[in-house]
Formats: sequence, C-alpha cells, structure tokens
Amino acid sequence: MSPVFQLTCDLIRRRSVTPNDAGCLPLIDGRLAKLGFHVEMLRYGEVDNLWATHGEHRSPGQGPLLVFLGHTDVVPSGPEDKWQSPPFEPVVREGRLYGRGAADMKGSVAAMVVALERFVTAHPDHPGRVGLLLTSDEEGPTNLDGVRRVAEHFRQAGEHIDWCVVGEPSAKEKLGDLIRVGRRGSLSGTLTVRGIQGHVAYPEKALNPIHAFAPALAALAAERWDEGNADFPPTSFQVSNLNAGTGANNVIPGSLTALINFRYSTASTAAQLRERTEAILARHGLDYALDWNLSGESFLTPAGGHLREVVVSVCRDLCGLEPEQSTGGGTSDGRFIAPLGAEVVELGPVNATIHKVDECVDVAELERLPDLYQAVCERMLLG
Amino acid sequence: MSPVFQLTCDLIRRRSVTPNDAGCLPLIDGRLAKLGFHVEMLRYGEVDNLWATHGEHRSPGQGPLLVFLGHTDVVPSGPEDKWQSPPFEPVVREGRLYGRGAADMKGSVAAMVVALERFVTAHPDHPGRVGLLLTSDEEGPTNLDGVRRVAEHFRQAGEHIDWCVVGEPSAKEKLGDLIRVGRRGSLSGTLTVRGIQGHVAYPEKALNPIHAFAPALAALAAERWDEGNADFPPTSFQVSNLNAGTGANNVIPGSLTALINFRYSTASTAAQLRERTEAILARHGLDYALDWNLSGESFLTPAGGHLREVVVSVCRDLCGLEPEQSTGGGTSDGRFIAPLGAEVVELGPVNATIHKVDECVDVAELERLPDLYQAVCERMLLG
Ligand SMILES: [Zn+2]
Ligand SMILES: [Zn+2]
Repeated sequence: MSPVFQLTCDLIRRRSVTPNDAGCLPLIDGRLAKLGFHVEMLRYGEVDNLWATHGEHRSPGQGPLLVFLGHTDVVPSGPEDKWQSPPFEPVVREGRLYGRGAADMKGSVAAMVVALERFVTAHPDHPGRVGLLLTSDEEGPTNLDGVRRVAEHFRQAGEHIDWCVVGEPSAKEKLGDLIRVGRRGSLSGTLTVRGIQGHVAYPEKALNPIHAFAPALAALAAERWDEGNADFPPTSFQVSNLNAGTGANNVIPGSLTALINFRYSTASTAAQLRERTEAILARHGLDYALDWNLSGESFLTPAGGHLREVVVSVCRDLCGLEPEQSTGGGTSDGRFIAPLGAEVVELGPVNATIHKVDECVDVAELERLPDLYQAVCERMLLG
Repeated sequence: MSPVFQLTCDLIRRRSVTPNDAGCLPLIDGRLAKLGFHVEMLRYGEVDNLWATHGEHRSPGQGPLLVFLGHTDVVPSGPEDKWQSPPFEPVVREGRLYGRGAADMKGSVAAMVVALERFVTAHPDHPGRVGLLLTSDEEGPTNLDGVRRVAEHFRQAGEHIDWCVVGEPSAKEKLGDLIRVGRRGSLSGTLTVRGIQGHVAYPEKALNPIHAFAPALAALAAERWDEGNADFPPTSFQVSNLNAGTGANNVIPGSLTALINFRYSTASTAAQLRERTEAILARHGLDYALDWNLSGESFLTPAGGHLREVVVSVCRDLCGLEPEQSTGGGTSDGRFIAPLGAEVVELGPVNATIHKVDECVDVAELERLPDLYQAVCERMLLG
C-alpha cells in the first residue's frame, strides 16, 4: 500500500466529525516533527489546529512561505445503513476508496503530508519555507475557532504567507480539470420588518408587514447588484427564508422575518451591498431591523499570479488537462488566508460525492495527488 | 330576579363551549313548547339546532315570518384563574353580570326567549309567524353543522324567512348605539407558489419562489379591489401568513405558501375576486396552486328595508339614540339567512368584552333588551 493510501485510510478510520479531531492531527504532528518540521498545536475553544513549517528561515516573517491548507474534520455520515459499507471503515470497491472524508478532504490532507515529506527529504535545504495548516473546524456552522482564529494569530505574530494551496476537492470529473482561483463572498442578514398586529376584519387598525415589505422585496429581487467581472459571475441575492403569520387566517401578523444571503463577486464589497440593501428598505419607508453576518469576504488570485500559473502548469503537465480556472461554489477557508496578502489556489480531487452517502475518491487519482502537490512545491520554491 | 336575568344566569351556568350545547337548547325548548310554539330539534353531526315557530300559518312558506337568530355556544374561557370570578358562575359586580357568554350571546338569547313569550302571550293570534333559530355551532372554526345546514334545510323545505333579527352584540358603548345592516364577505385562499430548490451558491440551478412571487405580491397588496359603496368600506385584501424556507440560510426553498383573505363589500363578488387574483398571478407567470374557501358571502339589508327602518325606530324610541347603521366587523350567521331572501339586521348588547376574560353585560341594559325585541315583533307584525 502506498503512503498516501495508507494515511488516507488511517484518517478515515478516525471519526473526526466537527469539531472532534479524534486523533487525526497528532498522527500528522508525529510524522512531520520526525522530519524536522516545527510543529505547533494551536487550540482555540474546542478546536485543534496544526501549524507545521519547514525551511531555513524558521522565524516568522522571513522568506517566501508556501502553505498547504486543509481540514481533518468531516460532516456527519447521516444514517450509516444508507451506506454500502460503514462510513468510517475505508473500503476499496471498483477502484474507488469509500469512506466519510475520502474526498473532503482526508485524501488531500494525506497527499499534502506525503508531498511535504518527499519534498523536504529530497531538498532538505530548500529555499524559503513550506508549511501545513490543518484545522478540525471547517465543516461546522460557524468556523469561529478554526482558520479564522489562526489567521488572526498570524496577523498579530507578523507571519506572512505568500502562497496558499487549499486541498478542497475542486475537480469536476477528473483530477486537474478544475482549480479554484477565488471564491465569492457570503454575506447574510436577518431582516425583521415590523408592522402592527390586528384582525383581518379591521385592517385600518393594523399594519400588515407582508404588504409593507412586498414592494421592497420585489425591488431587492429585481436589483442587478453588479455585472460580475472576468473572474466572477454577477453578485447573487437570495431570500432563503421568509416567515410571517400566526397560523390563523384571521390575524394580520405584527412582524415578518426574512433571511437573506448575498454571494458576491469582487465587483462589489460587503459594505456596498449592506448600504444598498438598507437604502432600498429605507426608500420603501419600512420599520425594520437588519442584523448582518459576514461569513466570508470574497477573494481572488488574479490571472498572472505566480501560484495560479504554476498550479495551471502542474495540471497541464501532470494530468494532461487544461484546468478550468473557476471562482464558483461555496466558500472555503481560503477566505481567511487571502486577506493576509496570500495568493490562494484550490486544487483537490473530484467533488461529486462530498457530503453524501458513499463518499469516495478514485484510488489512482489519490495516488497521483502527492505528485501534484510536490510539483507545486518544487516549481514555487526551486523553479 | 327578572325572567331575562334569571334565564341568562341559567344559560351561563351551562358550559356550552362549541359544539357542546350542555343542555341550553332543551331548557328553551321546554319553555317555548309550553306556550304553543312548534319546536324542532335539528341535529347535524355533533351539533344541536333549535327551530321554534309560533303563528297561525304553521306550514312552511306561509305568511310573513320574523325570525330571531342566536347561538348558545360560547368560546372557551381561557385560563380560569385570569377571571375575577369563575367564568361559568354568573356573578353581579357594580351593575354588571359577569360570565362567559354574558354578552356573546346568552343575554341576547334569553332576551329573545322572554320577548317571544311576552309577545305570544299578549297577542296569541298575531298575524304571520314569529320564530327562534338557535345553534350550538357559531363560535367554532367551520360552522358546518349550524345555521349553514339549517339554511340548506329551509331552502329544501321551501321555508321562506322575511325578516331576521340577529342577537350578536352590536353596540359600541350603549345599547342601541349601533346596529348591523349587513356584513362583508370573507373569502380565503391557500396559495402555493412552486419553485426549484437549490443551494444559494448555485442560484442558476434553482428557482426561488420568494423572488418569483415578490412582484405578484406587491401587485396584490397594491390592488384597489373596489371603492366600496354607501354601506361598505372598500374590499380589503390581506396576506395573513407567508412561509418559505427550510430554516437553513444556504438553501433556496422549493415552494412558498401564503394564506390570503378578502373581506369584501357588496361592490365585488367572490367570483370576481377569485378571477382577478388568479389573473394577477398568471400575469406574473407563476407556477402556483390556489385553494379557495368562501367562508361567508357578503350581505346587505339596504336602506329603506322595512326591518332596518323598524329596528332603527325601536332604538330611537326605546333607547333615545340614533343608531349607527354599520356593516363593519367580522361575519355572523346572518350570512346564511340573508341568501334565503331575508332582510337581516343585528341588534344586541355592548360587545366590548366578548371573547375576553371577565366578559360581562350591563344588567340594566340586559333588562331592557327584551323590550327592544318585543317592540320589533309588534312593529313588524302588528304595526
Ligand atoms: Zn472541505
Ligand atoms: Zn356571537
């Protein structure tokens, strides 16, 4: 069995449902420490984060730093009897390795570890530094104590990351067919529109917040927030939840609640979207409260960026594919690293089965993933 | 103790929460039968209805028929410890009789019985007929087996009602200050707008029913359905409940549900409102389903109607007040009698405490209510 296959299986066997690390990080800690990595375990709240670096400049802020970013936590398996084989027992069937986290992203984590091991063994005195940042809180609802907190720590410590490769499963059908060069931002809001409750037979004594909100809702839904740009589709606005009413059909409700969400391109900022939303609400004379939650700023590694070009060349040379360079999909922990000034590119296995039953990764592609990551190290630091 | 006070107390003591009559109707049955009334108990489903008539023409469809309409059922008391005295024990404090149903409408029922007793005793050979129709299913959610069913029975039996006095508590501050000469109709609908569920990160693969519905909702809320008329305010449209969403802020919901309600004047018909609503929905290209429920047609006893003029004159002469002639408020069982071709007028005690804790009626006004009903009998049939 190859080292990457072996380590992926060892990680799958650990039931590391967020935020319980279940021993994944110590396993990696031991391996990297043995090879001369400087390893820190950064614990915030209930969450373990591993930060390992290797290179001649051991003090923060020195030399170019290439970081691999990943997570060892997984989403729950759901009903285990829906799986063809138990979700935390790695099994190969027809060339695919099955298990929760196989694709998202224990396979990538194992490949990063193996690639770094090979790289520092082959080039013990490589220029610059390589690093591995792993968290056990990526899949949770808030990610408060994962990479968000680590990034704050880096900012305070003056640690500068130049390049960051995120192991999120990016490929559509084949390893190397798609890389992510940025992500849209995600801005949420909880909107409460206040009216005056009353009886439907006496509408003159009430103020129906549903009626009051209707023209503003139509305006928000019709608004063209931006045109997007070369790298991003236009900003998208969605009302995900809308609730008003007591259940009774003879009562005019006293308030309405809407959950709204922007997935926004780099053509807009969160501040602009907040301002424009509130202007539309104000223009319609609503009595409202709006609690904003910025869950992720948008980020982009522009065309021409060194890391982006190298990752494209690695896909081209090692996979024989011209990768699509996308900014689609949800958010990733890359959003916390990009604001530190890093170029961020995401490269990982096929994502077709992630978060589903019978999650799996193609074994042959898993075996090739360390080659890709190692090539990125070599081309960035030695090239 | 006066007969009306005594009978009101006897009725309050019976816990006749809809649809349980708790012996109210048999009590009245016995009294009226003794005076030569022809009494039928019409039982539909779980509901008792009492139909008593007196007069020379005993067969249906003969002579002018003046009917008093009421209900013996009451709404629940709510928490009994919130009441100053137990809700089903009649108690007088400071000139007011307290108890569930005192105002809505056991006081009126007692007054009708006493008025009819006095009238037939004083005029045993009166022309035409007088009748009393009581149900134990007025306050329930559907009223399926109350006056709605009795009215069907009348229609099939060829019974013609000329005039109907409803005992619903109509007065604002003083007995006789307001009578109802009609009621708005109530038309409800359950609207389901279908979209396509998806993830907020991939709006192009989803169809958000909240966004799709927004312009139609704004149009419905802005629509001027009619201008009302001399007797009615304009038709009012209200969305009482609006719900969409899974709770999660990253899911675009697959459907939206709205409960809508029209309170409509005689300037529109239910059919017109249904048609216009569906035209607005269709114009916005929505994929929707809409289940209509007509809970009450509108009705009006126009100015110049004989009963309306007599009731006004009775208020003027016996209460010294010029009554407001209103069509406001919710619906009443009068909506089932009016379509039979009857003039319908509502006259009853002050409604300030109905359906509340510490429901009460002014004792002096309760004592005068039989005089009002008796005067209506005399002026309609003898005058
Ligand atoms: Zn992931
Ligand atoms: Zn009532």
